Amino acid sequence: MELKMDRDALTLFLRRDFAQVAEDFAVERADAGGVTLRLRVAERHLRPGGTVSGPSMFGLADVALYLAILSRLGPVSLAVTTNSSMDFMRKPVAGRDVLAEARLLKLGRVLAVGDALLFSEGEAAPVARASMTYAIPPGAVDGGRAG
Amino acid sequence: MELKMDRDALTLFLRRDFAQVAEDFAVERADAGGVTLRLRVAERHLRPGGTVSGPSMFGLADVALYLAILSRLGPVSLAVTTNSSMDFMRKPVAGRDVLAEARLLKLGRVLAVGDALLFSEGEAAPVARASMTYAIPPGAVDGGRAG
Amino acid sequence: MELKMDRDALTLFLRRDFAQVAEDFAVERADAGGVTLRLRVAERHLRPGGTVSGPSMFGLADVALYLAILSRLGPVSLAVTTNSSMDFMRKPVAGRDVLAEARLLKLGRVLAVGDALLFSEGEAAPVARASMTYAIPPGAVDGGRAG
Amino acid sequence: MELKMDRDALTLFLRRDFAQVAEDFAVERADAGGVTLRLRVAERHLRPGGTVSGPSMFGLADVALYLAILSRLGPVSLAVTTNSSMDFMRKPVAGRDVLAEARLLKLGRVLAVGDALLFSEGEAAPVARASMTYAIPPGAVDGGRAG
Repeated sequence: MELKMDRDALTLFLRRDFAQVAEDFAVERADAGGVTLRLRVAERHLRPGGTVSGPSMFGLADVALYLAILSRLGPVSLAVTTNSSMDFMRKPVAGRDVLAEARLLKLGRVLAVGDALLFSEGEAAPVARASMTYAIPPGAVDGGRAG
Repeated sequence: MELKMDRDALTLFLRRDFAQVAEDFAVERADAGGVTLRLRVAERHLRPGGTVSGPSMFGLADVALYLAILSRLGPVSLAVTTNSSMDFMRKPVAGRDVLAEARLLKLGRVLAVGDALLFSEGEAAPVARASMTYAIPPGAVDGGRAG
Repeated sequence: MELKMDRDALTLFLRRDFAQVAEDFAVERADAGGVTLRLRVAERHLRPGGTVSGPSMFGLADVALYLAILSRLGPVSLAVTTNSSMDFMRKPVAGRDVLAEARLLKLGRVLAVGDALLFSEGEAAPVARASMTYAIPPGAVDGGRAG
Repeated sequence: MELKMDRDALTLFLRRDFAQVAEDFAVERADAGGVTLRLRVAERHLRPGGTVSGPSMFGLADVALYLAILSRLGPVSLAVTTNSSMDFMRKPVAGRDVLAEARLLKLGRVLAVGDALLFSEGEAAPVARASMTYAIPPGAVDGGRAG
């Protein structure tokens, strides 16, 4: 499938339309396979004890998959998260950024579905797994299959 | 089941042990039926457009159920979120606090499970639904049933 | 909200349109609060050891919520399950039917969301929790709100 | 990680310990990357209209990940499903078997987590996505890390 927004275009989009959280994230990769998004871990993302908080990991997975949808649809869309499921499997390594490897599994006319694995930078075993569903606004997908 | 921490005790716990997020929340109710937690919505909880963000709703549900577990086990425990599932059903009303009505469905020796409905204050239809699972540290539940 | 199909109408629908599984289920209740559906537990629903299998509990929750949607929309609709999340919390009691208490949380023009608690008959503690999302075919909901 | 049961050993286990469902499934692959399990689609797996039913897909994903755990732990364990999350994304192709590609993401002392993609045989786009959590009985994992 054709890519309508690449890494630079997604980065620009984040800065302009998500100014409140743009400095939290860096787009590392955007290609046919999906999007890699970095959470630049700072004090505000931590829980007591120094580990990255659940809401911060939720936000990372959500923005990563949102950008994966935009990379296919272009900047016009306004996808809305309708469902999320996450497994928190390991404690993130203190003092390290967290990376989300996100892939789209379906881009329908009505719903988009994708999943992501989250890793502490440099580690092979994922800290979390996320799957997310988005409602796509009418008309955003040309010639998409139903559902 | 006996309540080991009431509304005042949970409020004190939040202030002392979760100082970073304590001002975000107010414990409205803690009884045998569960916990009601208020998210005091402020600028930092909003997405572009003025609606409460997904990570903020995730955090609200997570803290509400965490407090529901503490109300039964007392302040010694260190439960860890292992799974979450959320449905985002309606747009929160702008400028209103969000309330989570949380209930414990299981408090085992190893796992605790609960769910919550989230409402914009004053509205009858929920904005979101959440279910959460927590791993309970060994020894925290006396005489609990397995699993 | 008005009920377009009551307990008798849903029972008839099951027999006519879901003949393959109709004998597995009995509609115990259908009202504004939702649907109670009974799984008549038989040998084919059991796992080794005699407990009700996961797929049987999945099917019970799915049919219960499907009927809850039909009770509001009438028999014309063809809702499709798009997401499910389940927590299996306790071992079902051997030799007992399982009852699902299902409620609709949202009936939008595009998506319906509901959840259910599953109980071994006569027990107060639930064996499982389920939440389900359905895609609603275009035009099935008159005057429904978006999403 | 070492494989304690290969494809033949898992096939034998299914026949002996899961006789009720063994003929539904064929183990196509079992290696360090995970397990591929085939659902031999028959009349009893279908919904009205001829598509594979939700409970059948749930069962396929559940057995595939259960076998992936056994391949690591050996036949002694009795893992119990505690959570499942599934996205149903496309209608399975009529008259085709369904294959689950399952991978373990975590094998802890207490919990195992994995996910799977389900495909109609010969198709590139998945019909469903599943993630599953299992409680591991005490002592089954030697030297496993906590949680």
